[in-house]
Amino acid sequence: MPRIVDHDERRREIADALLELIAEHGIAGATIRSVADRCNWSTGVISHYFRNRHALLIGGLRRANELAANRHREISTKIIGRQAVEAILESVMPLDKSRLSLNRIFVFFYAEAVVDPVVTQEIERYLAKWRRQVFLAVKDAQDLNEIDPDLDAEVVARDLVCLADGLTIHALFDNKIIAKLAETSPIRLWTSRLAPKAQAAKKNTTAPALMRD
Amino acid sequence: MPRIVDHDERRREIADALLELIAEHGIAGATIRSVADRCNWSTGVISHYFRNRHALLIGGLRRANELAANRHREISTKIIGRQAVEAILESVMPLDKSRLSLNRIFVFFYAEAVVDPVVTQEIERYLAKWRRQVFLAVKDAQDLNEIDPDLDAEVVARDLVCLADGLTIHALFDNKIIAKLAETSPIRLWTSRLAPKAQAAKKNTTAPALMRD
Repeated sequence: MPRIVDHDERRREIADALLELIAEHGIAGATIRSVADRCNWSTGVISHYFRNRHALLIGGLRRANELAANRHREISTKIIGRQAVEAILESVMPLDKSRLSLNRIFVFFYAEAVVDPVVTQEIERYLAKWRRQVFLAVKDAQDLNEIDPDLDAEVVARDLVCLADGLTIHALFDNKIIAKLAETSPIRLWTSRLAPKAQAAKKNTTAPALMRD
Repeated sequence: MPRIVDHDERRREIADALLELIAEHGIAGATIRSVADRCNWSTGVISHYFRNRHALLIGGLRRANELAANRHREISTKIIGRQAVEAILESVMPLDKSRLSLNRIFVFFYAEAVVDPVVTQEIERYLAKWRRQVFLAVKDAQDLNEIDPDLDAEVVARDLVCLADGLTIHALFDNKIIAKLAETSPIRLWTSRLAPKAQAAKKNTTAPALMRD
């Protein structure tokens, strides 16, 4: 071992190896032993950073969140408005190997959270942050008049995040859903329905009928 | 004990007691012992019907599904169209004690399913049935012209089910969400956006601008 060790960097490496293993074999394939083999380190080194399997999985959850937050930030610097809403949401759906892993670990911890208050807090914090990111993007889209400004941005953001999350969970149970999600954007159908009313007809009027008057 | 025992009835009673306990105390509060106490039977009687805690929880999952399916059927005989879509979806969201229990047990088993193929099959079958029920209601709503007939009913049903499911899971983590869901229908915002285009403006035209010509 080198004398100077970047411990944060090493934790990240271990967590990344864990996420790879989960993507390949599911949660069952993620153990101190399998992570040690993947990293070419002893189980002793792994245990130095994560004292047991549960701590290792929590490390994986935090790393997955970090990667997702990085993606969200990157998107927010590049695009804005409705497209950003869609991109942020799709960035965490299981459309490729790394996102499959993120999602497996999340669903695993959703259930852990039912009995473990520490996990509950981690998950709560993450979900709140995710809703907030989407909320800001929805606000921008409303300012750009791409999403109806009359809608409650907080509710729209909450629902879109829940839609993405629900689709993800169902996809983990059904390969046909995964395939379909990868084909066409599962989010655009809904965001496209949120255009301002002015672009559509006024409520309770049918434009063609009025024109015939 | 009476000489003639309706075993199905007894299983249902035990499962109902289990669901009550989960609603009150969460999954952690659901054990052979606590169910026996609630039913006023010995743990031996409970073990006769469910050989261990896992079997008991599977029994609860099946009973929760049965109750949900009964609700769906009842709704389908009373209302039709967009309202039925909304009612079916809301009938399984955690807006009261019994639905909270249904949802706790589901989230618990979502994670179990990650490692247990028997549970995976149960969940898969249930989700497929639920999507099918909503699909049929969406089809009716399209026939009634309450939902845009150009939309793919299967995709709309899938997404609405996933929205309801995602909202449910987030609500389990955040009491503020539960409160808000009970206040205003979380589904109506989205179904109301699915009206046929004829009732809205034609794509890519802005009706007021045309009228000024």
